[in-house]
Amino acid sequence: MSLFDPGTEDAPAERATSEEAFLQALLDAEAGLTRAQAALGLAPAAAADAVTEAAVATSFDLRGLARRARAGGNPVIPLAADLTAAVPVEYGPYVHRGATSQDILDSALMLMSARTLDVTLTELDRVERDLARHAAAHRDTAMPGRTLTQHAVPTTFGLKAAGWRSLALDARDRLRSVRAGLPVQLGGAAGTLAAFEAYGAAEPLELVSTYARELGLAEPGLPWHVLRTPVADLAGALAFTAGALGKLAVDVATLSRTEIGEVAEGAGGGSSAMPHKTNPVRATLIAAAAGRAPGLAATLYGSMTAQDERPAGAWHAEWATLRELLRLVGGAARDAAELTGGLVVHADVMRGHLALTGGAIVSERLSAELAGVLGRARAKELLGEATRRAAAEGRTSADVLAAEPELASLNLLELTDPERYTGAATALVDRALHRR
Amino acid sequence: MSLFDPGTEDAPAERATSEEAFLQALLDAEAGLTRAQAALGLAPAAAADAVTEAAVATSFDLRGLARRARAGGNPVIPLAADLTAAVPVEYGPYVHRGATSQDILDSALMLMSARTLDVTLTELDRVERDLARHAAAHRDTAMPGRTLTQHAVPTTFGLKAAGWRSLALDARDRLRSVRAGLPVQLGGAAGTLAAFEAYGAAEPLELVSTYARELGLAEPGLPWHVLRTPVADLAGALAFTAGALGKLAVDVATLSRTEIGEVAEGAGGGSSAMPHKTNPVRATLIAAAAGRAPGLAATLYGSMTAQDERPAGAWHAEWATLRELLRLVGGAARDAAELTGGLVVHADVMRGHLALTGGAIVSERLSAELAGVLGRARAKELLGEATRRAAAEGRTSADVLAAEPELASLNLLELTDPERYTGAATALVDRALHRR
Amino acid sequence: MSLFDPGTEDAPAERATSEEAFLQALLDAEAGLTRAQAALGLAPAAAADAVTEAAVATSFDLRGLARRARAGGNPVIPLAADLTAAVPVEYGPYVHRGATSQDILDSALMLMSARTLDVTLTELDRVERDLARHAAAHRDTAMPGRTLTQHAVPTTFGLKAAGWRSLALDARDRLRSVRAGLPVQLGGAAGTLAAFEAYGAAEPLELVSTYARELGLAEPGLPWHVLRTPVADLAGALAFTAGALGKLAVDVATLSRTEIGEVAEGAGGGSSAMPHKTNPVRATLIAAAAGRAPGLAATLYGSMTAQDERPAGAWHAEWATLRELLRLVGGAARDAAELTGGLVVHADVMRGHLALTGGAIVSERLSAELAGVLGRARAKELLGEATRRAAAEGRTSADVLAAEPELASLNLLELTDPERYTGAATALVDRALHRR
Amino acid sequence: MSLFDPGTEDAPAERATSEEAFLQALLDAEAGLTRAQAALGLAPAAAADAVTEAAVATSFDLRGLARRARAGGNPVIPLAADLTAAVPVEYGPYVHRGATSQDILDSALMLMSARTLDVTLTELDRVERDLARHAAAHRDTAMPGRTLTQHAVPTTFGLKAAGWRSLALDARDRLRSVRAGLPVQLGGAAGTLAAFEAYGAAEPLELVSTYARELGLAEPGLPWHVLRTPVADLAGALAFTAGALGKLAVDVATLSRTEIGEVAEGAGGGSSAMPHKTNPVRATLIAAAAGRAPGLAATLYGSMTAQDERPAGAWHAEWATLRELLRLVGGAARDAAELTGGLVVHADVMRGHLALTGGAIVSERLSAELAGVLGRARAKELLGEATRRAAAEGRTSADVLAAEPELASLNLLELTDPERYTGAATALVDRALHRR
Repeated sequence: MSLFDPGTEDAPAERATSEEAFLQALLDAEAGLTRAQAALGLAPAAAADAVTEAAVATSFDLRGLARRARAGGNPVIPLAADLTAAVPVEYGPYVHRGATSQDILDSALMLMSARTLDVTLTELDRVERDLARHAAAHRDTAMPGRTLTQHAVPTTFGLKAAGWRSLALDARDRLRSVRAGLPVQLGGAAGTLAAFEAYGAAEPLELVSTYARELGLAEPGLPWHVLRTPVADLAGALAFTAGALGKLAVDVATLSRTEIGEVAEGAGGGSSAMPHKTNPVRATLIAAAAGRAPGLAATLYGSMTAQDERPAGAWHAEWATLRELLRLVGGAARDAAELTGGLVVHADVMRGHLALTGGAIVSERLSAELAGVLGRARAKELLGEATRRAAAEGRTSADVLAAEPELASLNLLELTDPERYTGAATALVDRALHRR
Repeated sequence: MSLFDPGTEDAPAERATSEEAFLQALLDAEAGLTRAQAALGLAPAAAADAVTEAAVATSFDLRGLARRARAGGNPVIPLAADLTAAVPVEYGPYVHRGATSQDILDSALMLMSARTLDVTLTELDRVERDLARHAAAHRDTAMPGRTLTQHAVPTTFGLKAAGWRSLALDARDRLRSVRAGLPVQLGGAAGTLAAFEAYGAAEPLELVSTYARELGLAEPGLPWHVLRTPVADLAGALAFTAGALGKLAVDVATLSRTEIGEVAEGAGGGSSAMPHKTNPVRATLIAAAAGRAPGLAATLYGSMTAQDERPAGAWHAEWATLRELLRLVGGAARDAAELTGGLVVHADVMRGHLALTGGAIVSERLSAELAGVLGRARAKELLGEATRRAAAEGRTSADVLAAEPELASLNLLELTDPERYTGAATALVDRALHRR
Repeated sequence: MSLFDPGTEDAPAERATSEEAFLQALLDAEAGLTRAQAALGLAPAAAADAVTEAAVATSFDLRGLARRARAGGNPVIPLAADLTAAVPVEYGPYVHRGATSQDILDSALMLMSARTLDVTLTELDRVERDLARHAAAHRDTAMPGRTLTQHAVPTTFGLKAAGWRSLALDARDRLRSVRAGLPVQLGGAAGTLAAFEAYGAAEPLELVSTYARELGLAEPGLPWHVLRTPVADLAGALAFTAGALGKLAVDVATLSRTEIGEVAEGAGGGSSAMPHKTNPVRATLIAAAAGRAPGLAATLYGSMTAQDERPAGAWHAEWATLRELLRLVGGAARDAAELTGGLVVHADVMRGHLALTGGAIVSERLSAELAGVLGRARAKELLGEATRRAAAEGRTSADVLAAEPELASLNLLELTDPERYTGAATALVDRALHRR
Repeated sequence: MSLFDPGTEDAPAERATSEEAFLQALLDAEAGLTRAQAALGLAPAAAADAVTEAAVATSFDLRGLARRARAGGNPVIPLAADLTAAVPVEYGPYVHRGATSQDILDSALMLMSARTLDVTLTELDRVERDLARHAAAHRDTAMPGRTLTQHAVPTTFGLKAAGWRSLALDARDRLRSVRAGLPVQLGGAAGTLAAFEAYGAAEPLELVSTYARELGLAEPGLPWHVLRTPVADLAGALAFTAGALGKLAVDVATLSRTEIGEVAEGAGGGSSAMPHKTNPVRATLIAAAAGRAPGLAATLYGSMTAQDERPAGAWHAEWATLRELLRLVGGAARDAAELTGGLVVHADVMRGHLALTGGAIVSERLSAELAGVLGRARAKELLGEATRRAAAEGRTSADVLAAEPELASLNLLELTDPERYTGAATALVDRALHRR
């Protein structure tokens, strides 16, 4: 809950990254470890049951834990103490047994990440389905293609929507791939698993795989306490997703401009001062997220340079950063789903805009066609003249050119119809929609 | 309060940037506006009193406001409604009168920033005083200067502490300067102050200056809704502060290494697995903040490209980012004050390390002195030989060179005493301590 | 010279940051040091002359220096050797005497920065003068104010231009201030100035101030080899400048849109495929620079955490980054000067757009005025009805409201004239233009 | 070639990203397009031959192209003109036919990226082989594991080297995967391929696949002019690689410290002032690259928000940024190969350091073992006493504990031998070395 960020407010990703959710993830990581030890005969089954039963976030004093986390610089130290106190005294020794704080904290970060990616992927599925619908519905809706802010040549709204969707699918693929590989952390104080041996594990690597199964995470090749591949991969996939949705957002914002008005958010936001306004609020919030994600991802990439067996800073810099990035991107995906679900498309306005440049939007085609008939040089000369005269006389170039006897063989009306100059747009849409 | 960030936990800066604190700042901004209007006869004095009395954060439903902020993408829209409802009906029209959401939100961001900088500056004052004390106490404590991780030539701990302090003072100066200029925001829907005229203000610029006085903020030259100088200046000064404290932190962490042990945090953090460890926890948390600040500042600099009279994203990207940066840096300043307050300096260990390179740490001086006696070429040759022999025979270079008749005129013992090769360190410390 | 960056191509700032320019700055730093030593009697005057005479970049093998820089990781090591070889043998000992590579490299970075800021400030002066001219010329040119992409209330182009100018002046002030403080670096191997003493300097601090005078740079309070205030300040001021110009650029790009067309770059760039296009190329290149600067500045802020007496990485990360940032921002200033110098303003188009919302652009004023006559509730009700009817019947709200007997006292035509609802815009422009 | 960056100087990646290399890539992109058209009967074979023959970078005026790129904001416009002029006049029409500048520039960026990744992957192969060798050779070399700068529990150098290698392999896998997917760009002015149809292509999508084959790049699902997946993926994989190598670098720098001395770079860099120093220069340069990469990657992720059919800034921001990132990471890989190839490992020093904490490095094990014999509470009490007495009397804890009759059953000498407390380190190394 935050007044500072309407984009994440009340999103599934916000709940999945809340303090309470993280506390639960930390407790899940502790309980999973005791269960894994029990499964290998290193702890009594009753201890595993007791720890699992006690590991309920609402039973713990979150605020107190946060405060006591200051002394050692992480919340697992007080949490392990409180969890130990919460189980029958005879099971206390099996809480956090052999583990280091980082085992629990990293595993909890992965659990939280997995849960947040899951809800984010659900939002992305809505986005891609909505965009597939728009692409199909507007497969042949011609509109101006714009480059460097100027009308260039025609495109279709179908192709635009298909492009947005392809980015959403790219984001989905990257998130899914990272999600599938999120690993459990287990290494002990310096990543050698030595304490687990000291507590009796004959095959500590087996404990790692068992722990992974208990938490539903992947088994890492090595303890990754200072090999931060999973966090860096999350950074990349999340920054990618923010950018992918950001592209959709800046396009929607642009096309919503008062002077353009080719699309509108279904439920635009009001204004405190101007009741007539319907602002592209969802696009605005997504664009804000896209503006924030790269800096957060940069911090996570920077934290890869993790000194020794636990760095004095780089690891700690990850926690709030990863959480914010997860929350931000999950919120943006939620806003994107609202945006695409409600998007109103004004096909007539799009088509109408094709005339704004007085035919110049198809000058490329005219160049090509005239060059075929007249040769490149003469074509260029003629077209230049026609464009100037058209502008001066308020006519279209086609109209001016129609008087040229050299061009009698050409169907200028058809050639200069912007709606007939959309190239392979339809074929591209069709191909893009085959992607699932 | 956050399990994700022990560095900000319970710091004054955390309280100054809390949801409740921001809500109060928003309410202060609303109340100040009504009072400013009353001061100019644009609203009844009773309305100003009523709004001021009602503007107490604890009377408002923070969670509900956050949720209702989603529709329009900012929390001021529902807040203005709730504040209107909270005053006698006849004063309702004087709530938020003529303002746009951004007037209130930006003014509140500045109030929150001012309050956070104030508490951060207090921490920095503690830091600089502690460091002045260390610099004075260790004015002549020689220790190895290290470059690219290797012993280079001697320095003093006094000079090191004076350097840390000079960064803290640089940070203080930048924060103070930014603090003094934090402006009120008032422009209305598009920065022209038109609505205030419509509501009767004959001299809307006077309303701006009155508003500034009411909130204790500076008067801006122009409404700065899309001229984001204040936010960018905050970004720079805060990133600077994080880096300044980060330098202190990485040095303390390095000097705390088991193999170095020249300093120790007074109250190092424990470990869940290894009771013997005393970790440089404060340095770790500061270093983490220093790792995070640049990415956040980059986002704020990026938000300067604010389109139109209110951008669709760049502005919204600032809110949580600025808050996080304020909180982070304020937390780092608190940890720095704890660190410098408790820092234990082992002068004997420092001096002992001067011998680690078998005299090579003063080879630069020997080069210079021998060159004066023998000429550069012969000096280099002789020194090379001596260094090799010293290494091979486990002696010092000075010892080897003592046998050279060419050098009979030199007091080699004194020349190779690292504690006598600290250059202008003491003079530099003295000069640096004159800075206030 | 680079195919990758048309924005910096051939700009004064590109020349000031070229390899040759940096080599010259390195040589200037070496020669200045010998001269400073001569001035204090620590070297023969003839040595200073000889070194100064030899210190001409074109006499050195730049490519070879770059290659030989790999061994020690910096170019000063081979450069000092080559410079020594380039002077008469008896003056060789006075080259680089007592210095460490960082003294020379940092001083050269500051010289290069000073020279680049100087040319950049000249460009900014052109920008602010052009913008002052536009602001004065369009002091009363009304146009739509746009927020979140939608028409909000009217503003003036004069106010917009005055706002752009105020950012340019803010940038100028920050660059000037940083420029004035750029310090010489002199500390020797670990910042104690010990080697200069070994070579005879009785007052090494005097050598620092003399060196500063020789190079025309400021005298630092302490050697700043690991107190990176000057670099961080450059980062902040340059990122600020990029953002300030970026705001101008995104506005110009937006107002240049085919559908808006309120401004045009005087000499828009062509297109290889579409001869009719005139793209806002200068705005595009400035926006690109604004997109790049924050990440570069973040790297420089991150480099403040410089370990020990010379860090193993953080310092080296600054060189190319600072150079790129200087070049980038200098290029953007050049493009901004070209843009503002040639900007074509279509005042008629601006005014024409005020009608696009059918009067809604002044609904804020109507609300205020009607509330004054009818009370807030009745006003809101009446205005809502009128807006709906106006939209349905294709009329303006004013037209609909004119029939209301309750409003007979109001001059609705005047009240709904957008050109008469620009608030204090003109007063703000006048005040802003007083700033020099 | 650059004085600013010894890390990239003369690296294969520097050559692959030089101005000349990029010019050649642009020409390759042009020639490949004509050949693709010829292959489909859209151009004479002789035209394809002529363009291919003319497309040699050394025949073009690079400096002039860069300068003329300013007008339109990209170098392809003048290049297409010069290439047209370089072929027999009858083939001129087949140069750049139907293409937009972005088709050529993006395809050239991908060619350059592919070539740079290839040489970078070769360096990474050297790195991983060297590290495999070190890991195997030091499979059982015990050394202190260090967390938050303090000795924690023992680890092995084999495990450390295996960890560095696993990051190198992760980087390799990510670069390979991105490399394989680098796509050709072909879409024409707005991504519809319309101009190619106008010039006669019946199946423009076939032209895309033919073009991809000609350039040896992948075929994209859609023109990606504003769907910047390939650039974002490069950003992520390159930032990852920089971070992966950065971890190696910070560890080597740390272990090279004068006080630690567990490793040394084979050919450390000298110092201009202190001849005795052997600095970890390769590690320093890699760390610098790791410090710079995240900011550059952030810019590229930020450029994903590419408005319309070609954005006014975001695209242009990519060029120099991507080039710098490619060059930087390729240079870091080269330095990493030099570093790992020459790394000297002092196994004796590592083992010697295990004694530095007077046995505390195995206190974790003692806790576990004593708890097994005495119960947790009594064990903790006894160990605390022993640690205090050991510290006070300058003995080891094991020595103190040996006198405890309760512990007669334990082989304390073995239990407190740090070399016997490396847990599963060897098993982990073995498993890690199976990865290829």
